[in-house]
Amino acid sequence: MQLYGYFRSSAAYRVRIALNLKGLAYESVPVHLVKDGGQQLSETYRALNPAALVPTLVDEGAALGQSMAIIEYLDETRPEVPLLPSDPLGRARVRGIAQAIACDTHPLNNLRVLKYLKHELKVSEDAKNGWYRHWVAVGLEAVERMLAASEATGRFCHGDTPTLADLCLVPQVYNARRFDCDLSAYPTIVRIDAACNAVKAFIDAQPQNQPDAE
Amino acid sequence: MQLYGYFRSSAAYRVRIALNLKGLAYESVPVHLVKDGGQQLSETYRALNPAALVPTLVDEGAALGQSMAIIEYLDETRPEVPLLPSDPLGRARVRGIAQAIACDTHPLNNLRVLKYLKHELKVSEDAKNGWYRHWVAVGLEAVERMLAASEATGRFCHGDTPTLADLCLVPQVYNARRFDCDLSAYPTIVRIDAACNAVKAFIDAQPQNQPDAE
Repeated sequence: MQLYGYFRSSAAYRVRIALNLKGLAYESVPVHLVKDGGQQLSETYRALNPAALVPTLVDEGAALGQSMAIIEYLDETRPEVPLLPSDPLGRARVRGIAQAIACDTHPLNNLRVLKYLKHELKVSEDAKNGWYRHWVAVGLEAVERMLAASEATGRFCHGDTPTLADLCLVPQVYNARRFDCDLSAYPTIVRIDAACNAVKAFIDAQPQNQPDAE
Repeated sequence: MQLYGYFRSSAAYRVRIALNLKGLAYESVPVHLVKDGGQQLSETYRALNPAALVPTLVDEGAALGQSMAIIEYLDETRPEVPLLPSDPLGRARVRGIAQAIACDTHPLNNLRVLKYLKHELKVSEDAKNGWYRHWVAVGLEAVERMLAASEATGRFCHGDTPTLADLCLVPQVYNARRFDCDLSAYPTIVRIDAACNAVKAFIDAQPQNQPDAE
């Protein structure tokens, strides 16, 4: 397998954790999101990933995009070390937490969105950072409520083994820290993030531990 | 089952199509996103949906949020009229198309985001509409490429029966039309949208056909 990604991409980070937890070897192919005007926009890369986004997983000739779809695919084809619970309600809860991050939070703070705010809307650096922190706060507050309110929350977001929810949460927290967001209102999130980052699969997936890290 | 939603919410619209395609009866509970300062922000609603977003599906006492998680849950618990293909690569493709809309496109044009642009960033009406159309164009261009490039595309996004991908695509196209986006560059999308909107389950789910339509 080959994973086309960028060390700092949250979406690629999610997939790296999944591959590591499942003990799957892969070749890391860096796609620099800034150099060359954004290598993801090249026609070569677009042939693999028409949306021109990272990550792309290539498995036996098939190129797959979208981090959550890739992780579900890995879970279906390599079911050892499952990343979703076996019961439908548990699966819905895990997917719901994952999507609260991957649909409601992360897309608003993507590099291309921050660029649009700066270059097209001429928003100041302060207002851009305010935007970033606002959506992180809205998203993490929602996730904190989901986690704190439920007996299904354990050492990790759902029980005592990592799931798709943790794979989305940890990169989001990593980004929040990078942008100096205050995390004191999210004690459950901070606790779970620490539990995850004590696991080798999570540590090995961190941006600074990638071959293309700067 | 009860579906808490808002006639114009794309995410609720997706779930309505799923329920209709599967022939599942449900009670529609309107949550007005504007009235009363946004009924989704009430503590009563937040007890059901901690993220304060629509939709919420209540099934046998369990309250589920996040439209894609709800649809996967319905597909697992009511497998008749499946909304995902049976092979892992096909499932990854369908989820990838769905997420290109639900993660990369729709979140940027949500009501709460448009409000932030207007009230916090003091963006003009023209610039706000430009933002809307920009992200619709980026998202639909990606989906058009995914659809046009693949032999798996049929009458619908994946083969000749509707899937989760169509359930995400149709509400996005509906919104794009509402905001006068030019769709001429996306012939495959326009064709599939028309095929979907000839099906009763899709028609019955349209915003103007909901009890809370204005």
